[in-house]
Amino acid sequence: MSNLTPGTPDPSCIFCKIIAGQIPCHKLYENEHVLAFLDVGPLSPGHTLIIPKGHYKTVDVMPEETAAAIGLCLPKLSRAILKATGSTDWNLLQNNGEPAGQEVLHAHFHLIPRVKGTDLREPIKGNGLPKRAWPAVEIDHVTAGKLAEQISSLL
Amino acid sequence: MSNLTPGTPDPSCIFCKIIAGQIPCHKLYENEHVLAFLDVGPLSPGHTLIIPKGHYKTVDVMPEETAAAIGLCLPKLSRAILKATGSTDWNLLQNNGEPAGQEVLHAHFHLIPRVKGTDLREPIKGNGLPKRAWPAVEIDHVTAGKLAEQISSLL
Repeated sequence: MSNLTPGTPDPSCIFCKIIAGQIPCHKLYENEHVLAFLDVGPLSPGHTLIIPKGHYKTVDVMPEETAAAIGLCLPKLSRAILKATGSTDWNLLQNNGEPAGQEVLHAHFHLIPRVKGTDLREPIKGNGLPKRAWPAVEIDHVTAGKLAEQISSLL
Repeated sequence: MSNLTPGTPDPSCIFCKIIAGQIPCHKLYENEHVLAFLDVGPLSPGHTLIIPKGHYKTVDVMPEETAAAIGLCLPKLSRAILKATGSTDWNLLQNNGEPAGQEVLHAHFHLIPRVKGTDLREPIKGNGLPKRAWPAVEIDHVTAGKLAEQISSLL
């Protein structure tokens, strides 16, 4: 679906389905431009994805207004996530293009609270391939639902 | 200097010195809120730092207006950097707090064009410690000066 007009929903995109409400999410925040929800494969409690509501593959094809809206929500959202999780440190990571590690081809910003054991600098061992640590676990939906409520209430 | 009012220049901060013009940089772009310049320890040609002009340690203590201004400049800046370097893929990485990998304690966004050999997922070998790949090289100021001019002219 790469020949769609940028910004138009891509019916094959999982994030567009979440935005349309066809797939549920643990929503933290939304406005006209932006949706923030808990990652279902979190690296740490509170690992959040912030996405534009329009389907833009990467930030370099995003309208300035959309990119500004994402920037604007970062301070308040990060403070609420840190408060709810008890973390004090965090990373923002955003990958543009598959060679840069992008998996879902709808631009997304990872907001990752840092807790011991989620150091992005520790490589995964196991299959012999050098990889950045990405020790994702499957989300616990009950705990995540409560956390999402708590974060939302702090916004 | 951690008891300064957020936003006030910290005389001991290297980024505040760059903003004040006391230390030179290969400037790409600036406006009222934001300065973008080439990292002197680049992971790849065009590796850029985007910083707020106010001294805020982390994004979670930044005013919304400042964070929005940083978001706003990302699409245009990344397009110019990709065009000038011939890269097509890139990462945005931003570390908040020393346990999250923050080294200079003035918030900064790394915009890292991806070229073969700069894969953030390849761990550094050598000292036995697991580390995220950060194969920085010392900047070549002549080449960097030309690249900065080229990127600026595309903005």
